[in-house]
Order: sequence, then C-alpha cells, then structure tokens
Amino acid sequence: MSRPVIVIHGGAGALARQAMSAEKERCYTQALTRIVEQGQAILAAGGSALDAVTEAVRRLEECPLFNAGKGSVFTHQGGHELDASIMDGRTRAAGAVCAVTRIRNPILAARAVMEHSPHVMFTGAGAEAFAFDRGLEQVEPQFFDTAERYRQLQRALADAAGAILDHDAPSHDDPIDPDRKFGTVGAVACDRNGHLAAATSTGGMTNKQTGRIGDSPIIGAGCYADDESAAVSCTGSGEVYIRTVAAYDVAAQMRYGGVSLQAAAQRVVFDTILALGGSGGLISVDAAGNVALPFNSEGMYRGEGYIGALPEIGIYR
Amino acid sequence: MSRPVIVIHGGAGALARQAMSAEKERCYTQALTRIVEQGQAILAAGGSALDAVTEAVRRLEECPLFNAGKGSVFTHQGGHELDASIMDGRTRAAGAVCAVTRIRNPILAARAVMEHSPHVMFTGAGAEAFAFDRGLEQVEPQFFDTAERYRQLQRALADAAGAILDHDAPSHDDPIDPDRKFGTVGAVACDRNGHLAAATSTGGMTNKQTGRIGDSPIIGAGCYADDESAAVSCTGSGEVYIRTVAAYDVAAQMRYGGVSLQAAAQRVVFDTILALGGSGGLISVDAAGNVALPFNSEGMYRGEGYIGALPEIGIYR
Repeated sequence: MSRPVIVIHGGAGALARQAMSAEKERCYTQALTRIVEQGQAILAAGGSALDAVTEAVRRLEECPLFNAGKGSVFTHQGGHELDASIMDGRTRAAGAVCAVTRIRNPILAARAVMEHSPHVMFTGAGAEAFAFDRGLEQVEPQFFDTAERYRQLQRALADAAGAILDHDAPSHDDPIDPDRKFGTVGAVACDRNGHLAAATSTGGMTNKQTGRIGDSPIIGAGCYADDESAAVSCTGSGEVYIRTVAAYDVAAQMRYGGVSLQAAAQRVVFDTILALGGSGGLISVDAAGNVALPFNSEGMYRGEGYIGALPEIGIYR
Repeated sequence: MSRPVIVIHGGAGALARQAMSAEKERCYTQALTRIVEQGQAILAAGGSALDAVTEAVRRLEECPLFNAGKGSVFTHQGGHELDASIMDGRTRAAGAVCAVTRIRNPILAARAVMEHSPHVMFTGAGAEAFAFDRGLEQVEPQFFDTAERYRQLQRALADAAGAILDHDAPSHDDPIDPDRKFGTVGAVACDRNGHLAAATSTGGMTNKQTGRIGDSPIIGAGCYADDESAAVSCTGSGEVYIRTVAAYDVAAQMRYGGVSLQAAAQRVVFDTILALGGSGGLISVDAAGNVALPFNSEGMYRGEGYIGALPEIGIYR
C-alpha cells in the first residue's frame, strides 16, 4: 500500500539569526505551504508523482525567495547560470540541463529533454536551443535578477576582496544565511500507484565561477528516482554530493544493503557527507510513501504533505 | 596484498566485419600495447594509480585511432565537444570538464579542476578559461579534425537524410563500426600502495546535437574510484549509463551487497545496462588488483598489464 505524498525543499544552510524575523519566517512558511498543498491536490486528483514534482519545482523556481529560476543567485561575473534535473522512478527515464541562462523554468527544460530527446543531459546554448525548439518560455538573463541576490553578490565580492563586512547588519533578510546556504530547490513524490519521481533545480552558488556545475543537474548526485528503492533530491555542498553520488547512494543502500529509507538517508547525510567535510540535507520517499528529510546543517526549508493531511513545514532543526 | 595493474579501453561497439583487416587490427593492437606498457612503467617505478591513468588517457587522447582528443568525432554542426573526468580513489577527489572545444587534453583539464579548484565540474567556456589559467595547452577547434571522422559525419548526415548508403563499402576503416560504436577512452589502475584511480575521456557521438552530455564526464556514471571498493571507467550507451549510475553501481554492489568486483561488474553490464536497452562495457579494478572488463557489445578495444607481465590486448569477444 502506497500513501501518496509530496515532499519539497528550498535549500539548506547555516542560520543568520538576525534575519529570523517572524515576518520573514511567515513568508517562507506560507510559500512552502502553498506549494505542498498544490502538490497534494495533484496527487489527490490522481496525478502522477512526475507531474507533482514538476509542478512543485516550477513553482519553487517562480518564487523569488528560493535560489532557483527567478531569485537565482549571481555568478562572479554578475550573471545567472541555472541547472535542473528530473527523474521518473517508473522507467528511470531522466533529463537534465545545466548552465542555462535564458530558460524561464529549467525544470520544464529538463523534463522536455527526458520526454522529447534520446538524450539525458544538455549544457549551455545547446540546452537552450533544444528548449526553445520545444516551445519553452525564453526570458532575458535579467529576468532572474533580484535586488536581494545582487546585494549578496556585492557582499561576497567584498568578502573575497578582504573587505570587512558587518555580517550582523540587517541586510540579510533570508533566515538561512544566504552567504552560507546551499540554495537548491527540489521535490520528491509518491503517487497512488506507488510510482516515484524526483526533481531538483538551482541557481548555483553566489559568486561562483562561470561554468561551475554542482550536484543539482547530475543524475545520481543531486537527483535520483527508482520505484524499486527511492526518490531523492539533495541540497548541500554540491561537490561532496557529486563525489559521494549521494542521491543514488540512498537507493543503493536500500537495494543492496536491505536497509530502510530512513536508515539509508540518515547514513548519507550524517556519515558519508560529513566524512568528506560536506554539509546539507536531502529529501526522500519510498514506494510505500515513507519519507525521510535529514539535514546536518542548522536549517533546511522543507515541507511534506500526505493526501488529506495538513502540510508539515519546517525551517530549523 | 595489491598487485599493481593498469587497464585501458578505447571504446566498445558493433563490428564492421569488412574493416577487420589484419593491418588495421595491428594498428589498434600496437597502440593499445604501447599505452599499457607506459602505464606499467609508471606503476613499476612507484608511480601512483592517479598518474598512471592520467598519462594513459592523455596518450589515448593523442592517438587519432580513438574517439577522444585528437580523432574526436564531429557534432551535427561539424565541430567537436569533448568531455573528460578523473577520480582519485584515495581521497574520492574528482574533476571533470564537459563541452570543451579548445583544450588539447581534456583529461589534464579534469585533473586540474580536481587539484586546483574547490569544484568538481566545469562546462564550456568556463572550463576552458579555468584550464588556460592553469597553463594547459590551447588549440584551435580544427586541431581535433581528422579525415576519417569527417567521413563518418557525412555518412551519418546522409543516413539521417534518408540516403541509401553502402555500409559494406570499404570506407569503414575502424574494425569496430564507427557508426555503431561508443567511442570513449578510459583507464583504471591499482598502484603498489593499493590506491585506485579512474579516468574517462570522449569526443562524444558522431552527429550529436550541440550540448549533449553523455556519461563520460559524470562522476558515478562514466567514472568512479574509491579505494574501499573499485575504480571503474565505462564506455557504452551514455544515457543508459547515466540513468543506472553505472560506474558507482559496481562499487555500491561491492560495498553494500558484499559481492566481488567480477560479479558486480558483470551484473551492471549484462543485467542492468541490457535491461534498459543499453550496450557497451566497462573496465574495473579493486584494491587487491583484481580486474574485470565485461562488455555486452561485439567488441571493446581493451588492454591490461600487471607489472612484469606482458600486456594482454583484446578487441573482439
């Protein structure tokens, strides 16, 4: 018996205590709640896990509070490079795009790659050409600009230049410290047929070098789904998640080691990732509808919702 | 006790029987033999597995017989986009570049990313900027052109246009059918300290769309190394290798399922990859120096050499 459920995350990281205003927290909580509710509605109407995670991540991309799509962080050069991936646990079909700059919703491009090309992954201009051929919405790179992310870049550039910054100044208005946050969004779901899906999208790291790719668009690292084990979406130190093949490692422990979703997810986040000096978290679900949302950082924006239940939303430990 | 060994591959695929001239076969066999011998010499002199696989793949990139570096296939647009990755089993450090067009030896760029950046993966112009900053050799994109690969592109374009081609014509001069070949090169090694390393490099698929990324630069898919399990380099249907996280799956079966390298590698190639309609092979080594080189296609260019032993070279089953 599967219990249909949607789980989402909006990134993990360290806390900037001065930014934890009740007002800010309510904004994040409301955004997460609405997106979980929409996912619940899709699943309750008999929609697929794949449709639920696609729509949840699309809405997270549209919400400027989160580092994906609109609201993405700036690269060192002052631009935006977006990555996204998706995987269908029913068939293990997958799609991903990386380093795209003009696709409004990278997760829709990843899904188009999965469904309408023989390939899994496209980068850069080739990814954009494919997406626009499929009719996806094109935007100017400036579409992704937000004032808050621009201030974050300026702080990061000043930090890198050795400037002394007042990190306790109230310019931080993201409760999870934007300078020490792994901004990624993601969703995993189990539908009424026990099918699983996972989706991940990111604007990358503030002040990152052009062309850097983290774990988000890498199948196995930042995203994985297989009905026989689990659907997983990660957020954290991207390089460590790549080196540990973190998302697939949850599934592999279940498949070959016979451990539960909970045990496998905990082990990845608290043993494997920490052992290599990484931090962050992941969200995961198995085909029975069990969920695990471990994180080893101070906070992770997250929400989960079973059909008929109230969404459960969390930010801190 | 570790038995130091180097194993290399030059791609897998279907056979074009009319091209199996004794002369051609000797060219491939000689090239593979020399590269194995050079790897053996590095290991015999106390060199690291990491140095042995780097040099083996660099030499495979330099050899125009193989689809990586000089001799890379052409994209649909008539250019070349190269991918490479490397992983050090001692630390699980990793580096990768994708969609580069002007770096003479992508494997050296992947190694530079691993050793001189906090990141694991760079794409496109960002990857090139990083590599040239590190002093790596820059070439014009035309450097990678070869007449044989250009003929392959023309055949592929004509095929795609519905032209009737004489596939038995002697224009094929690669014993493994270049039109149905998964051209990738790779190396894995175990050194005298029991450290492992893996490296993979490719020119991609003939007539591929710009921006397509296969498994070669994806840590976990086309390349993986961990002293506690195995070093693996893959060649085959890139998309299936990504979806099955093929390279890491060998290690995960050993780590969590307690199976041998041989059993894990066989299962990936003959069960997992075939189940999703893929074909190809992989080369792998564990910290005791055991090797496994399974492939489910008609041929795989391959060679292995233990210290003090003659290289063993193979092309067909």
